[in-house]
Amino acid sequence: MGAVKAKRMPRAVREQQMLDAAVRTFGRRGYMAASMDEIAELAGVSKPLVYLYLNSKEDLFTACIRREARALTDAVRAAVLPGLPADRQLWAGLRAFFTHTAQNPDGWAILHLQARTHGEPFAAEVAALREEMVAFVTRLIADAAREAHRDPDLPEAEVAGLAEALVGAAESLADWANATPGVTARQAAATLMNFAWAGLGDLMEGRPWTPPADAEG
Amino acid sequence: MGAVKAKRMPRAVREQQMLDAAVRTFGRRGYMAASMDEIAELAGVSKPLVYLYLNSKEDLFTACIRREARALTDAVRAAVLPGLPADRQLWAGLRAFFTHTAQNPDGWAILHLQARTHGEPFAAEVAALREEMVAFVTRLIADAAREAHRDPDLPEAEVAGLAEALVGAAESLADWANATPGVTARQAAATLMNFAWAGLGDLMEGRPWTPPADAEG
Repeated sequence: MGAVKAKRMPRAVREQQMLDAAVRTFGRRGYMAASMDEIAELAGVSKPLVYLYLNSKEDLFTACIRREARALTDAVRAAVLPGLPADRQLWAGLRAFFTHTAQNPDGWAILHLQARTHGEPFAAEVAALREEMVAFVTRLIADAAREAHRDPDLPEAEVAGLAEALVGAAESLADWANATPGVTARQAAATLMNFAWAGLGDLMEGRPWTPPADAEG
Repeated sequence: MGAVKAKRMPRAVREQQMLDAAVRTFGRRGYMAASMDEIAELAGVSKPLVYLYLNSKEDLFTACIRREARALTDAVRAAVLPGLPADRQLWAGLRAFFTHTAQNPDGWAILHLQARTHGEPFAAEVAALREEMVAFVTRLIADAAREAHRDPDLPEAEVAGLAEALVGAAESLADWANATPGVTARQAAATLMNFAWAGLGDLMEGRPWTPPADAEG
């Protein structure tokens, strides 16, 4: 009986195979065009089994979003050691982010494009991921400000704005890196680090860019 | 007869009123939830007239995307004087961008959220707008590099990456500014200018952020 059981795959393993197939299909074809037939075939199971395990196309897509969001935040979190200086933390986080999105282009397409592209229940799922990324970056910027002893000079709204800018830049660069042959994860991370940190660094040191003091300012 | 004609509104004017009503309704309710009844009522015309002028809900939404994309690029273009130094051009462009998105929150919601949220024909419309914004920023960064006499040191892929980062940051900040009470267009522009320019400025001056030279680098 043990031998027979060993041949049967545990439900959790089967489910992950279905999700692998679904992420690949949704990520490449888009949510609307992806068919449950194709997903079942790619997973090597029958379509009724997919419905039995994951209920509906909607639920399957939601499960994909959740799994991919979790994998991305876990990868970034694991890479960042809280004891390091803020710029080192950001560098580690950016490399982990771009490495993960490069290695999982279908998962990233689901999170950043497909999930937003098909209305409310899915959009709310990715909104939670985005909030987590913004909170992570907000904490890093606050750490950096503390390191530079500039807490009182950097208002909360400014920190929040900088965090939104950095997350938006990272999302945009991940799309671009995945669509542009020859751009490595390390290059994308270095480009954003240069863009963001040299700028943030100047700001922390009290060297903001100053608008021209003329009529146009 | 002249008097009778004066009372009748020219088709172009009626169409703009319909588009105003449609932008407001699509921007606030979303594409799916918005009804043609509501749009017609808000425009003060009959529903058949909306269909007569703009054909279908799909075509009406496409017309909204095109008009709002054109208005946004026109506003940015008009604000930027090509003769100015690159940082002044970027500052003028960012202020125009955030002023326009703040004054037209429904139009911005259509361009950055709704149009991406409802599939291919609409997504392709906004992709053209985005390409134009990226091209504009790419030219500015190239100008800045020329001003700093660093053309040979800044590879094309790096410039393209920086432009994608800046546009992604601007999109993200516009969403945030419109959703956050008390954040003015000027503040959003200044935050991004500080984030972007001080960073780009350092880069142009040959002071990139340098990754740590340890095992983690």
